[in-house]
Amino acid sequence: MQINSQFKTVALVGRSQTQGIGEPLLALARCISKLGFDVVFEAQTAEEIGVTDYPALRPAEIGARADVAVVLGGDGTMLGIGRQLAPYRTPLIGINHGRLGFITDIPFSDMQEVVPQLLAGSFEREERMLLEARIMRDREPIYHALAFNDVVVNRSGFSGMAELRVHVDGRFMYNQRSDGLIVATPTGSTAYALSSSGPILHPRLQGIVLVPIAPHALSNRPIVLPDDSNVGIQIVAGRDVNVNFDMQSFTALQLGDVIEVRRSLHTVPVLHPVGYSYYATLRKKLHWNEHPALQNDAPED
Amino acid sequence: MQINSQFKTVALVGRSQTQGIGEPLLALARCISKLGFDVVFEAQTAEEIGVTDYPALRPAEIGARADVAVVLGGDGTMLGIGRQLAPYRTPLIGINHGRLGFITDIPFSDMQEVVPQLLAGSFEREERMLLEARIMRDREPIYHALAFNDVVVNRSGFSGMAELRVHVDGRFMYNQRSDGLIVATPTGSTAYALSSSGPILHPRLQGIVLVPIAPHALSNRPIVLPDDSNVGIQIVAGRDVNVNFDMQSFTALQLGDVIEVRRSLHTVPVLHPVGYSYYATLRKKLHWNEHPALQNDAPED
Amino acid sequence: MQINSQFKTVALVGRSQTQGIGEPLLALARCISKLGFDVVFEAQTAEEIGVTDYPALRPAEIGARADVAVVLGGDGTMLGIGRQLAPYRTPLIGINHGRLGFITDIPFSDMQEVVPQLLAGSFEREERMLLEARIMRDREPIYHALAFNDVVVNRSGFSGMAELRVHVDGRFMYNQRSDGLIVATPTGSTAYALSSSGPILHPRLQGIVLVPIAPHALSNRPIVLPDDSNVGIQIVAGRDVNVNFDMQSFTALQLGDVIEVRRSLHTVPVLHPVGYSYYATLRKKLHWNEHPALQNDAPED
Amino acid sequence: MQINSQFKTVALVGRSQTQGIGEPLLALARCISKLGFDVVFEAQTAEEIGVTDYPALRPAEIGARADVAVVLGGDGTMLGIGRQLAPYRTPLIGINHGRLGFITDIPFSDMQEVVPQLLAGSFEREERMLLEARIMRDREPIYHALAFNDVVVNRSGFSGMAELRVHVDGRFMYNQRSDGLIVATPTGSTAYALSSSGPILHPRLQGIVLVPIAPHALSNRPIVLPDDSNVGIQIVAGRDVNVNFDMQSFTALQLGDVIEVRRSLHTVPVLHPVGYSYYATLRKKLHWNEHPALQNDAPED
Repeated sequence: MQINSQFKTVALVGRSQTQGIGEPLLALARCISKLGFDVVFEAQTAEEIGVTDYPALRPAEIGARADVAVVLGGDGTMLGIGRQLAPYRTPLIGINHGRLGFITDIPFSDMQEVVPQLLAGSFEREERMLLEARIMRDREPIYHALAFNDVVVNRSGFSGMAELRVHVDGRFMYNQRSDGLIVATPTGSTAYALSSSGPILHPRLQGIVLVPIAPHALSNRPIVLPDDSNVGIQIVAGRDVNVNFDMQSFTALQLGDVIEVRRSLHTVPVLHPVGYSYYATLRKKLHWNEHPALQNDAPED
Repeated sequence: MQINSQFKTVALVGRSQTQGIGEPLLALARCISKLGFDVVFEAQTAEEIGVTDYPALRPAEIGARADVAVVLGGDGTMLGIGRQLAPYRTPLIGINHGRLGFITDIPFSDMQEVVPQLLAGSFEREERMLLEARIMRDREPIYHALAFNDVVVNRSGFSGMAELRVHVDGRFMYNQRSDGLIVATPTGSTAYALSSSGPILHPRLQGIVLVPIAPHALSNRPIVLPDDSNVGIQIVAGRDVNVNFDMQSFTALQLGDVIEVRRSLHTVPVLHPVGYSYYATLRKKLHWNEHPALQNDAPED
Repeated sequence: MQINSQFKTVALVGRSQTQGIGEPLLALARCISKLGFDVVFEAQTAEEIGVTDYPALRPAEIGARADVAVVLGGDGTMLGIGRQLAPYRTPLIGINHGRLGFITDIPFSDMQEVVPQLLAGSFEREERMLLEARIMRDREPIYHALAFNDVVVNRSGFSGMAELRVHVDGRFMYNQRSDGLIVATPTGSTAYALSSSGPILHPRLQGIVLVPIAPHALSNRPIVLPDDSNVGIQIVAGRDVNVNFDMQSFTALQLGDVIEVRRSLHTVPVLHPVGYSYYATLRKKLHWNEHPALQNDAPED
Repeated sequence: MQINSQFKTVALVGRSQTQGIGEPLLALARCISKLGFDVVFEAQTAEEIGVTDYPALRPAEIGARADVAVVLGGDGTMLGIGRQLAPYRTPLIGINHGRLGFITDIPFSDMQEVVPQLLAGSFEREERMLLEARIMRDREPIYHALAFNDVVVNRSGFSGMAELRVHVDGRFMYNQRSDGLIVATPTGSTAYALSSSGPILHPRLQGIVLVPIAPHALSNRPIVLPDDSNVGIQIVAGRDVNVNFDMQSFTALQLGDVIEVRRSLHTVPVLHPVGYSYYATLRKKLHWNEHPALQNDAPED
């Protein structure tokens, strides 16, 4: 079936320092090699599991040479490689090792069977948005980063409240006194933003959400903006305020610094098995009911 | 200035049974007549305030003949006439009488000055989405309605929980046991949905939000969907479940009935003064801070 | 062992119209009869499962003659019999049939083993508070009820907002515009109040909680009051406002009516197996984590 | 009137580094001196505003010698002196300078008139609870502190989630993965805990509340415990986890450390003018409605 595949070179990526993924990954490599695909390994994965029979490439090389990347790990592994491959638009296939992930949706146990099907062209393609953020100091950019999940400005735990002045598309939104502010993509809406009472955004929604963290004003509610919005967050007050991009910290913020956040030009294609349902993932991850309640489940039974 | 205006006929609409709006509306009518516009009154408004000098038209006639409608009242008045004029794409100008509204954003006191400016072409235009809903029984449609704010399925206060089976685009989302479910537009996101812990949706967001009301499962959180989604809500259990469209009730629902909600093909154009800021409205309505906190406002002062 | 027991007469109560509880209840009856206890059945239970060998008593007779009641069903069954036995202070033992309950905490499968141990004196005793409510019209009481979980004032689903004027101990608290207001005991705090974003109250807490339902003002937050508070809720506006006592409706409220709620003089003793943990119940019912997260559960893995 | 007063020596305390409080404080001192009270100043206040005519005492001396302390500032000033005077049970009178406080409830402008009335015995007395916390390392206490508002364990902003293992009265409650956990008194329930979605606790409630901060599990809801509960919070995982006592940080926590929190034996008496209403304070601070809505305030007007 490989003859008609749109993919030729397949990269394999594993979560680092994880027991028990070496043998399954190698078995997968052999399996898809036999089907006629060229297999390469991400360099750190190759080193950790002792791969010698396949080329070991750095992420940028994978971006340049591979047509698709199969990622074995959790959502975090997916986010990490996704940010690096974003400029190359390399599609990702996510296999979860451990708990079901929101974006690593193929069960580990089904990997050997399902991955070849996807590589053969039987998949549903989804584009996931990324955020691009830069830190401005005295109107000069001093730092730049991509985020798959979220950009989070927050106070350190050692000090009192932060005060943030927020503009959207150059228009003043508010001065917010809080523990911080999350700007999340649809992908990030089910991560930290959800814990801070943000809404879930469907992956296809062209929107980003601003979720305040422990805001002083009880009416500072999450707000969902069109994804072409430019968000500017200025640090007005607060000691030791910092900013994270997908949990990677930048800690040397000063009063007056502005974090600018906008949609990245890049998107990350993610491939799912045919019949994939985002709602099925939500139901499992969030323990939503699947079946009508039995009569005796009623609270007043 | 009227010579270059894109508008020729202006309809005036007032909130019904409201003291003190007759004289200001008539003054406005005289003012814009002098500027060369043709003025008509909405029929009920005309009757209530005793208009004799201008034509009195029903909403459908306004839609057919007027180029723009000036609405004096609150958001409710605006919703009501907006639904009726939606098929005609008649733009609306909203004057608030009483409290500031979310969409009736021009202060009553500025009306005589600001309305002529808008009519002269100095405005910012915004398109507001509508929902179209129909009730299906045994696969046949039995009722149809438009909603500017929201479609709300909920149990009556007399009985226990409702159980709703929700599909989106034909895919099963969940069985929800709750007091009900709100499907809201961006316009409706600051109305009932906000009281039920929904997020704010920016008017330009191409999305709709599903907000559960007092859900049994604490993880049944609001979810924002792309605005091209088709939402199906089936009544699985519950006595006296009903559905409201912008608060207009349909009460004869039966078990098994499905409420289908999708974006209407119609949108309602709303005209704002130049410099209009949605965020300024949010700040005022929700008591958000505008100014940095004074030092002695700190909680640990 | 029965010789030293503080209990002599044991009443058995089953959830009505429930398949499969007759035989286990009769087996339990025989077992504890043999241990020397006098066994009686609640009359409706006796009729439904066809009991002929034991006396069948109405709840008031059980209150007068039994020393303890064993209840097989769900929390609802427990609430129902609890309200009726409250004036007699008959202790309850709750066996859950179906899902684990918050107060019916003994698994059905352990019943034959655990109940004799409790009857022998090996138990932990807990007192559960009740609310007493009355409806005042023109300063005259027109209705009276007890509630184990909650007193809920709410609008019907057919109409707009309710407006409630709340006093506590004769002092004005607020005018609340909302879908309604819940007054809950600690027992009720994990029922409807929890779905409406109320806090959990520990059963030993001497408090009651007021939880607004979809309040118009976002700062109308749940408030926990000392349990000797007298709460007065006046219906100021709203069509078809009604009040429920543990989900039993009183629907003929009029504008101006006041619902007065205070702690009942009665409490309901509930007996748990030794080592019972309220927190274990919460963990199970609310899916709280019991074990430290594995390393690869981290969101950024 | 001073002859019958239960107070003889009155201490005056002002918020430090605050413009414009020197002259009013001195005027108050002269006024109550004339009434026959002995006036002393808190030492730092005395130094900052240049007091020479009255004794300047450190807080411990105030506790030993004064019968009542009048505090001019905000809630923070009140918390600070309150913690220091707690062992002496010196009653506090709170004057707010700046915004209305939750516990500094006498307006600055009324001070000269109202304070003498309170000193003359015309007041309502309220006892405010304090928390006592200690940090245990290898079963040895290494730090001890009092808190009027709250004890807050939280991760620093630089790192990922914290994991906390919580016991109450020696019974395991849960392992919580979150940004942190707040243990708040009724006084603290309207401070940081409220921003993190905690309930309001009435000052007379004999309870404390545990409020999780951005918990990973959406069902980790605030829980209100009896005030005789012993809460133990162990740091299971997380980098740079720290603990604050009324916002005073202790930052050198290690994995395995346990923060033990219980009710302090001390309470702080606070004196209010006769007719004081806690609800009036809530209404003002939280913008609750005082008046029934006008007809045209209805959302569907």
